[in-house]
Amino acid sequence: MQQIFAYSRLYSFTYSVFKSIGCTDADAETATKALLSADIRGIDSHGVARLSGYVRLWQAKRINATPTIKIVHETPSTAVVDGGSGLGLVVAPYAMQVAIDKAAKVGTGWVSVRNSNHFGIAGYHAMMALQHNMIGMAMTNASALVAPTFSVERMLGTNPIAVAIPAHDQPPFVADFATTTAANGKLEILQRKNADTPEGWVQDEAGNTSTDANILKKNGALLPLGSDREHGSHKGYALGSIVDIFSAVLSGASYGPWAPPFPAYVPMPQNMPGEGLGHFFGAMRVDAFRPADEFKQHMDNWITRFRAAKPAEGHDRVLIPGDPEREMEAIRMKEGIPIVGSVVDDLKKVGDMFGVGL
Amino acid sequence: MQQIFAYSRLYSFTYSVFKSIGCTDADAETATKALLSADIRGIDSHGVARLSGYVRLWQAKRINATPTIKIVHETPSTAVVDGGSGLGLVVAPYAMQVAIDKAAKVGTGWVSVRNSNHFGIAGYHAMMALQHNMIGMAMTNASALVAPTFSVERMLGTNPIAVAIPAHDQPPFVADFATTTAANGKLEILQRKNADTPEGWVQDEAGNTSTDANILKKNGALLPLGSDREHGSHKGYALGSIVDIFSAVLSGASYGPWAPPFPAYVPMPQNMPGEGLGHFFGAMRVDAFRPADEFKQHMDNWITRFRAAKPAEGHDRVLIPGDPEREMEAIRMKEGIPIVGSVVDDLKKVGDMFGVGL
Repeated sequence: MQQIFAYSRLYSFTYSVFKSIGCTDADAETATKALLSADIRGIDSHGVARLSGYVRLWQAKRINATPTIKIVHETPSTAVVDGGSGLGLVVAPYAMQVAIDKAAKVGTGWVSVRNSNHFGIAGYHAMMALQHNMIGMAMTNASALVAPTFSVERMLGTNPIAVAIPAHDQPPFVADFATTTAANGKLEILQRKNADTPEGWVQDEAGNTSTDANILKKNGALLPLGSDREHGSHKGYALGSIVDIFSAVLSGASYGPWAPPFPAYVPMPQNMPGEGLGHFFGAMRVDAFRPADEFKQHMDNWITRFRAAKPAEGHDRVLIPGDPEREMEAIRMKEGIPIVGSVVDDLKKVGDMFGVGL
Repeated sequence: MQQIFAYSRLYSFTYSVFKSIGCTDADAETATKALLSADIRGIDSHGVARLSGYVRLWQAKRINATPTIKIVHETPSTAVVDGGSGLGLVVAPYAMQVAIDKAAKVGTGWVSVRNSNHFGIAGYHAMMALQHNMIGMAMTNASALVAPTFSVERMLGTNPIAVAIPAHDQPPFVADFATTTAANGKLEILQRKNADTPEGWVQDEAGNTSTDANILKKNGALLPLGSDREHGSHKGYALGSIVDIFSAVLSGASYGPWAPPFPAYVPMPQNMPGEGLGHFFGAMRVDAFRPADEFKQHMDNWITRFRAAKPAEGHDRVLIPGDPEREMEAIRMKEGIPIVGSVVDDLKKVGDMFGVGL
């Protein structure tokens, strides 16, 4: 049912596919690293499983493999980047680097991006800041699948937020989460198992609570983090909205229900108010606030104290954001990355298109 | 059971109390406006209901009514402010103004604050940015009442996040929410009614789900936004942690379980790793990204489109963050502010201490 692949094998395959659609060597490398970071970290929905989707967007001429990516407006601490319809996997690291360079000069850097595409996992881009002793932030808007509180209309994407914070001896704090109760990838896993969702993840076309993992195909919607009004869904709705506005209204990308859909077969929305998908990146130099070593030692203290918090019955430990993904990375770099059969078949088809063996 | 007060009457009473503890005219005005913004906007738990609490902290010498508030470190886009143990209601507007001034010069400003106290509602401070055509952000850490996912120990405060975004003809987008499923103030309302909480707001000492509105007095805990792991509580836990780190680890305030408690009778934590409570403020000039009018017109379009989203059955409209508070403000400025009997009694006692009539 599933096959195990070494990272190096997935790397050379993915790199070759990106080269085949016309990416430069450097862009193919950048895109491959960003995409596979999801597989390594255990976020299987956002890794090679999406490679054929990117290729289809390229075929539909919605992704330009040789984009002109440029800064179109800037101040000492901000920039707007036009992604030139490029792979988000290439545009995002470019924009995050702009944020890092600005932070190096004036303390912080904030970059809003338009005319881009799906950028893989937000955490990968946020983590670029860590090696510079900076806090990194990344967010993106996405195809509308989420209904606001009290609504049945899909107005927002799963709009993730990632924040990466360096520590000293402890591993970094890395939060990376969709602003919905459950990410779409979780539904896909249940669909493959023919299983129901828990209550509170999705609603049907009329706004009634549902446990149908296929409800998005029946005009249902994902629910904002909090699930319903009584449990704070208006907060998840606000968070998803903030991500949408920072990523797309600030930059001039297409926002809300007009965000371009990921599946190439879905027609583009009418009357789009901006260009492509939007992202938002931030970098804050730790020593723009206090000496970096002092900050990082306090982060060690923070992490150690939270890890020592008394666990609830049935649990042996309290996790720090980033722990599960880092532990998964250690395992998968050693033992390989499991890919489900349907994705392996899909990758083989993509390989056949370009004469690239998996 | 409750009495209606005109804003002007609450204003002069509160101003006189702040003057009586030794605040300057200017600080008493600043603090009164910030505090009462909660009552006007319908967040009754954070307004005059807390005035006696501030006075008790002053009596316990934990609040200095004549603080030296100063910038202790800065770069072009950042600063750390030491609040000198002042009222958070005074320290926060000072720090937010620093963020706004920096944004005016280099596009954005980011200020982390240590050695402060409870600052009222986060939204008030974030909204200071709006008149400057800036996006405002405000957050704060707070007394530990919240258990991380899988834990029974209270490690985080309700750690709110506020984001205010200007529009053109539409009212601004103003999100202001605790990073828990329900704020502590919601429990207090249920306590007064002898009512139970819904499932998913709190847990008992052993980590079992509970509906006891008094559970915090029995070593229970508030739950992070998401309620449980299956519904994304690890995301609420991550959000509350980010607020704690930005507010207190970046600035040198006391973080996590060591955050100073609001009730003056609760002993201060041992071995505090920093000074006082921490806050974090941000200001982003809209025209550091795109022309301000263009951005604000797109915000009008965003708001109008979301307000027109199809409502679920039983609901007549979809709200924009900030709608309920703005509507409440219009009503209360006209019809007065209802204050429950127990709070009126409490205010009268505070007034009696200083010979100030309510």
